[in-house]
Amino acid sequence: MYSNKTDPVAIVAPAARPADAHKKVDTKAIQALDAKHYMHAFTDTKSLGQVGARVIVKGQGIYIWDSEGKRLLDGMSGLWCMNVGYGRTTIADAVHAQMQELPYYNSFFQTTNVPAVQLAAKLVEISPAHFNHVFFAGSGSEGNDTNLRLIRRYWDLKGAKERNIIISRENAYHGSTIAGASLGGMSGMHDQQIGVTIPNIVHIGQPYYVEGGKGKTPEEFGLVAAGWLEQKILEVGAERVAAFIAEPVQGAGGVIIPPSTYWPEIQRICDKYGILLVADEVICGFGRLGTWFGSDYFGIKPDLITFAKGVTSGYIPMGGVLVGDRVADVLIEHGGDFNHGFTYSGHPVAAAAALENIRIIQEEKLIEKVHNETGPYLAKKFGELNDHPLVSIAETCGFVAGLNLVKKKGPTLHECEAFDSSLEVGMICRGHMFGNGMIMRAVGDRMIIAPPLVTTVEQIDEMVGLIRFCLDATLEDLKKRELI
Amino acid sequence: MYSNKTDPVAIVAPAARPADAHKKVDTKAIQALDAKHYMHAFTDTKSLGQVGARVIVKGQGIYIWDSEGKRLLDGMSGLWCMNVGYGRTTIADAVHAQMQELPYYNSFFQTTNVPAVQLAAKLVEISPAHFNHVFFAGSGSEGNDTNLRLIRRYWDLKGAKERNIIISRENAYHGSTIAGASLGGMSGMHDQQIGVTIPNIVHIGQPYYVEGGKGKTPEEFGLVAAGWLEQKILEVGAERVAAFIAEPVQGAGGVIIPPSTYWPEIQRICDKYGILLVADEVICGFGRLGTWFGSDYFGIKPDLITFAKGVTSGYIPMGGVLVGDRVADVLIEHGGDFNHGFTYSGHPVAAAAALENIRIIQEEKLIEKVHNETGPYLAKKFGELNDHPLVSIAETCGFVAGLNLVKKKGPTLHECEAFDSSLEVGMICRGHMFGNGMIMRAVGDRMIIAPPLVTTVEQIDEMVGLIRFCLDATLEDLKKRELI
Repeated sequence: MYSNKTDPVAIVAPAARPADAHKKVDTKAIQALDAKHYMHAFTDTKSLGQVGARVIVKGQGIYIWDSEGKRLLDGMSGLWCMNVGYGRTTIADAVHAQMQELPYYNSFFQTTNVPAVQLAAKLVEISPAHFNHVFFAGSGSEGNDTNLRLIRRYWDLKGAKERNIIISRENAYHGSTIAGASLGGMSGMHDQQIGVTIPNIVHIGQPYYVEGGKGKTPEEFGLVAAGWLEQKILEVGAERVAAFIAEPVQGAGGVIIPPSTYWPEIQRICDKYGILLVADEVICGFGRLGTWFGSDYFGIKPDLITFAKGVTSGYIPMGGVLVGDRVADVLIEHGGDFNHGFTYSGHPVAAAAALENIRIIQEEKLIEKVHNETGPYLAKKFGELNDHPLVSIAETCGFVAGLNLVKKKGPTLHECEAFDSSLEVGMICRGHMFGNGMIMRAVGDRMIIAPPLVTTVEQIDEMVGLIRFCLDATLEDLKKRELI
Repeated sequence: MYSNKTDPVAIVAPAARPADAHKKVDTKAIQALDAKHYMHAFTDTKSLGQVGARVIVKGQGIYIWDSEGKRLLDGMSGLWCMNVGYGRTTIADAVHAQMQELPYYNSFFQTTNVPAVQLAAKLVEISPAHFNHVFFAGSGSEGNDTNLRLIRRYWDLKGAKERNIIISRENAYHGSTIAGASLGGMSGMHDQQIGVTIPNIVHIGQPYYVEGGKGKTPEEFGLVAAGWLEQKILEVGAERVAAFIAEPVQGAGGVIIPPSTYWPEIQRICDKYGILLVADEVICGFGRLGTWFGSDYFGIKPDLITFAKGVTSGYIPMGGVLVGDRVADVLIEHGGDFNHGFTYSGHPVAAAAALENIRIIQEEKLIEKVHNETGPYLAKKFGELNDHPLVSIAETCGFVAGLNLVKKKGPTLHECEAFDSSLEVGMICRGHMFGNGMIMRAVGDRMIIAPPLVTTVEQIDEMVGLIRFCLDATLEDLKKRELI
């Protein structure tokens, strides 16, 4: 009945662990176990096993350390989530206190718990005015699955069952459940789930000026790109369309910052045809753009908001949906039982972490700082990278930023010469970044960051200095390889 | 830009909170906020708001307390998850320590963390011999979405793209994502997601002897029910079938305990047609049946095991998939990048909680206790309820148990007279249970429990005594209402 495998893992009780346990990590042993047993996300397990994973053991502020003692500046906030920075003792304390009091209870049995209720009220307080209800899930993915359920239920109750088409965007990221990947526009994910993709989801182009804006001003292109929504609505039939879902700024797609004209026009089109607007704010929420939500930044009025990541700064998994009045009123007044929910919906410990995280954001005025001080400073400093010979454009929006690597700069953005994508120049650049202690992500040949909201102006100087240093190193490397 | 709503929620820093904060909960105020802002899982929000949710504030061992000081014996382990019981200080300590060291890092960037690696190795150690790899997710739902991806990818790589039909069971529960609900066999969930259900999933009947076994012995019926799988395979075409997914004991469906002949025959059929067998062990895993996994209990050899709940006893959200060698070898050797994963995959804090939880299970020999001592004792004591005039059958399997309420007992199980389902007698009974301090769940007219693994023989006496008392109260109530 019990396993007869070897390699038993000795687990030491916390009390018996030395405080500096992380300093004693045997890197080779952990890498070997990792290669043997751990299938990583979005990874070629075989290749990774051959080189060995980097073992991250410690975080403090905007920095992390690996098991060899190397420090890295975390320009990606973990994975777009570490808004308040690593090492927050008060979050650990809040979690510890809640876990001893009530480590878990469900919300299925007509029962509730104090932190979940307080968090729901808090989220209502900080979200746009027409949001008064929260549905908790465990992640952004589960939030988007919840959205599909809410949208479906809403139109059923409105007597419009035929409205079952969801419009999304190419290169969008809405999570990694089957529904999330179906909503998303990542071809690599679609290719690996042929046959199980959910039906009735169609995609339009993304508002990516670098890619599609040739011959137009950004403002002109923004209207064109928004117009693709109206075209698609008319193509499939306006009476068939249930909702449009999009990230205010596309994140995993490569920090695609829409022109200023884009979102107002999208809002106008959604209003015109009466279709629901879903803002996936998993990345943009909780201060990322210098506002509580990306919807505040762009002045849009979505019906549903997906949240995750920044709600707890990633300290404990949590996600969910802010349900706007248009949908909530129909479901609550006329819907009866809503047959949906997760074991961890409204988890008291995750909620306690979220409450303390939001308290920190408010007390330290992190959003105001990004809005008024560090965001503009990042825009200025990161913008200076536009002078680099490898960079065709470097741009920011609040605390996300992206720059494009090109083989040869041209007189205008759209006359630059791109690298052959098979060269994976972005990955080469990422290697120099990581090697020099800077975590910057490559999406094709676009390099992106989303630093913790606590990053100071001095740290922005350090970060952009590091990026420039690594761009120089990349340039030298590409010359040496005769790729440029 | 910022919200102008009223009702700001004052959040107090943990250090400033008194240790007995839970005793000071203003029940009415929390209920009012709950009704105003919190959409619960599987709930009619309007109705709940009218009566007010019960506010759970504290847990210790197998008991929880509400904000009015009422104690309840938690016969459902939270939601099938609180295996080691509430109030485990060492889990809180492990979480606190890990959170201060490294509260989060991702597994996307060729990076790993020590607790996730140790947990992967630990899970391999305790799982059946042919499991050597783990893919982490945030919940059981995300685990089953991961399964669909793994299955799809496996057959693509094997050059059998046409194998894209998944066979599941009616009344199965596989989570609440769109994929989870599509895999599941809950009609109430299917009804609310018409138009977004994923294709190519078909269902067969469940091995529920009470429902389908008339005129047969349980052993005969087990073979009949397993035969439905073979019938379905032949009906859709054996070369089209990718996998069969099932819970070893169906949980949310009502603790459907299969006859002893069922699983061996299912295994034989899967082997015969070469289809993958997926065991959803979200409920059965981590000791629930007195074995590490339900697969150990029933002696089956699945290719994939979904886990969640008991892996952390619910202290922190976590789930995932144990990937058997048959699938792992193909994906790792030939698959290249697997385009799937979640922000919280391999979360270091969740992994630290899981490691301490498993350490407790091992140190306190909880599985051995359920197997050798408390499980058999529960079977004996719970079985005594068979003499109750409302009960047609009371049965257990390890630490899950179910009993059926009937209007009139007959000479045999299949000759009892059922209640009209519209009377919702199960819900009436549940009301008496909750009202008398016993958490027992109703699934139609079947009442079920899944107590914490730490429940002692004395507590089993208390629990079964409470159940009997509440069955008596239910009987009196039904007589008074003239329903019996």
